Amino acid sequence: MSESIIRADAPVVTLINVFTVDRADQQRLVELWQRATDEVMRHLPGFVSANVHRSLDGTKVVNYAQWESQDAFTAMLRHPDARPYLTELGEIGTPAPVLCEVVSVHHI
Amino acid sequence: MSESIIRADAPVVTLINVFTVDRADQQRLVELWQRATDEVMRHLPGFVSANVHRSLDGTKVVNYAQWESQDAFTAMLRHPDARPYLTELGEIGTPAPVLCEVVSVHHI
Repeated sequence: MSESIIRADAPVVTLINVFTVDRADQQRLVELWQRATDEVMRHLPGFVSANVHRSLDGTKVVNYAQWESQDAFTAMLRHPDARPYLTELGEIGTPAPVLCEVVSVHHI
Repeated sequence: MSESIIRADAPVVTLINVFTVDRADQQRLVELWQRATDEVMRHLPGFVSANVHRSLDGTKVVNYAQWESQDAFTAMLRHPDARPYLTELGEIGTPAPVLCEVVSVHHI
């Protein structure tokens, strides 16, 4: 599946993690996040989606990720397969994770 | 329509705006953002979606918004109907807007 759905009543928690990076490192951080997701994150219990964004000004990488529950997300943070990736991500950029719920969705 | 779609090849730019607020103001900021979207933003040219999130810890409100182009987004910032709402939002919380493109979407 190549798309993710945002809904107010979906049974997920949403992690919005804005990484600040040097422009020279943006692409490397994108690729590391993609590799971490494909090799580890998406195989862990409770993973729903990860959606990797790059800022147009080159200074940020944003992961919009969905997990089945806050417990599943917290377990990922402690998982031994995830730890090396989390450490490496933090060496390239500065994370600012926010754990959220969707309140409302608006269209035209 | 009550859901938004995240895709890597969608013809949109994505605004991820993380507002920092006092816990006492989080609900007020959510409601102001909903009202600004319903009354103004969604009627402007190039609007695709707004998706309002509240952080579980009470200290952030995040808008994940999609616009047809960077020009449409920039025009909104200057629109006279939008300006009063943008000013009021900035009085309640501290915005950190990031304009992005989706690089990749990952699932199980």
